[in-house]
Amino acid sequence: MSLAIDRLAIIGVGLIGGSLARALRERGAVKHVVGCGRDAANLRRALELGVIDEAHHDPLEAVRGADVVVVAVTLGATGDILARIAPGLGADTLVTDVGSAKACVVDAARQHLAGACARFVAGHPIAGGEKSGVDAANAALYEKHRVILTPMPENSRDALARIRLMWETVGADVFEMDAVLHDEVLAATSHLPHLLAYALVDCLVDLGKPVDVFDFAAGGFRDLTRIASSNPAMWRDIALANRTALLSVCDRFEQTLAGLRGLLEAGDGAGLEVEFGRAKAARDEFMRRRR
Amino acid sequence: MSLAIDRLAIIGVGLIGGSLARALRERGAVKHVVGCGRDAANLRRALELGVIDEAHHDPLEAVRGADVVVVAVTLGATGDILARIAPGLGADTLVTDVGSAKACVVDAARQHLAGACARFVAGHPIAGGEKSGVDAANAALYEKHRVILTPMPENSRDALARIRLMWETVGADVFEMDAVLHDEVLAATSHLPHLLAYALVDCLVDLGKPVDVFDFAAGGFRDLTRIASSNPAMWRDIALANRTALLSVCDRFEQTLAGLRGLLEAGDGAGLEVEFGRAKAARDEFMRRRR
Repeated sequence: MSLAIDRLAIIGVGLIGGSLARALRERGAVKHVVGCGRDAANLRRALELGVIDEAHHDPLEAVRGADVVVVAVTLGATGDILARIAPGLGADTLVTDVGSAKACVVDAARQHLAGACARFVAGHPIAGGEKSGVDAANAALYEKHRVILTPMPENSRDALARIRLMWETVGADVFEMDAVLHDEVLAATSHLPHLLAYALVDCLVDLGKPVDVFDFAAGGFRDLTRIASSNPAMWRDIALANRTALLSVCDRFEQTLAGLRGLLEAGDGAGLEVEFGRAKAARDEFMRRRR
Repeated sequence: MSLAIDRLAIIGVGLIGGSLARALRERGAVKHVVGCGRDAANLRRALELGVIDEAHHDPLEAVRGADVVVVAVTLGATGDILARIAPGLGADTLVTDVGSAKACVVDAARQHLAGACARFVAGHPIAGGEKSGVDAANAALYEKHRVILTPMPENSRDALARIRLMWETVGADVFEMDAVLHDEVLAATSHLPHLLAYALVDCLVDLGKPVDVFDFAAGGFRDLTRIASSNPAMWRDIALANRTALLSVCDRFEQTLAGLRGLLEAGDGAGLEVEFGRAKAARDEFMRRRR
């Protein structure tokens, strides 16, 4: 099976949507790309860069006649977009999304797409970067990156297979997982780390020491807080969209930290070393497997 | 003023002590380097690499006749080393250390060095890396890195000036600060981040999800947890040595995190965006100033 998309509609032509369009085009898997967004300058730029062939502001117009629709807007806007495009979807149009939380997207699809849910396959490419916007879009973004699809029982086998193939075509490793489990896993590996990085920087801003503590921060701090430079509005949306799972793993983290704090307060060096060693072993193993 | 050390004694010939010896030698600032450590193989390696010229197991022997003694052992061993070298220090011998916590070192110096405290200048080069040991030692380690000295009222002006000059000679930017303030600053910028990185990995290890969550962790997690691959025994020592300041900033962090958690629980998107935005602004400014 190979992928041939005659008309691809990308709703939200930023880093994620733009990179997918570029990657599919570079592999000859798409003929015509329709881009949709609110920002006229961004759409002009996407046309200039050759990321899209045609630009629309109205998502309903953008999806008309499309084989595949990729909703790549922020999580906060996804439900609204699904509602607006629903009347324009053809009988065979496939729809997918790229949101970092999935249970809320599955709920929104059920609410707004009705019977078209058979052809809506929720997805999450685990890729990105601090840079955003169509200028940062690149055809290699998804190579060897993981994409998690969270199929619904309503999905047709063919729709699932074709969305999987789309991601495999651009070099991704595709996994399938229940939406709730996806949200728990990503809360732990991505959303909580972002919350911690933001919290650490905010904590230091408020310390009120007689020197600027940031002047004495080094490489460990720089790396730990890299993701605190991420887009606040995007992460507000993700945190809210995955609130239940994020609150749950945040509670677990607070317990773990309180445990370390207790060992420290008790002067339990042996206990601290065990916990630090356990973390080091798991982190070293994580790095070994990434190679 | 230029620096000319006839005989430098490095107690603990690892990354930090070894790099200082190499850097001083490369700049022609030292004639003879005496290395001291418990590990015979490591000392042989240091001799082979030309990092040291002479090796001893007994710190008392190592410091005899030295102009400058650099104590570069773990924080847990520093007090013991100061006690052992005290009888061997000449009337003009300068002593410094490189520990990541300073109030405890100042206390140990007062306890063990008595009158020689005039010539003991506590210091902390903010440099290092995941790699340790003399094989990782390199002459450029301190270039453009910060070194904080925490002078004691007992220090002679000459001793302070010469230890400052030693670090400036190897390319460091030298700052002076009260030991207690140093410990508060480093607790915030370094020791707390390490505790958080260890805690996050431990938390994920214990989650018990039906998939291995580490399989779906990406670049943000990798960078945030880099320092969880640090040496557990070393960080046990640092945490214990700086317990008071670390507990205090850990409390502050827990309050900040609880604040974010509260906003999330309340669904307060505007509040989350303000806090995330505050962190992003401070972190972006930190990176701008590092350039």
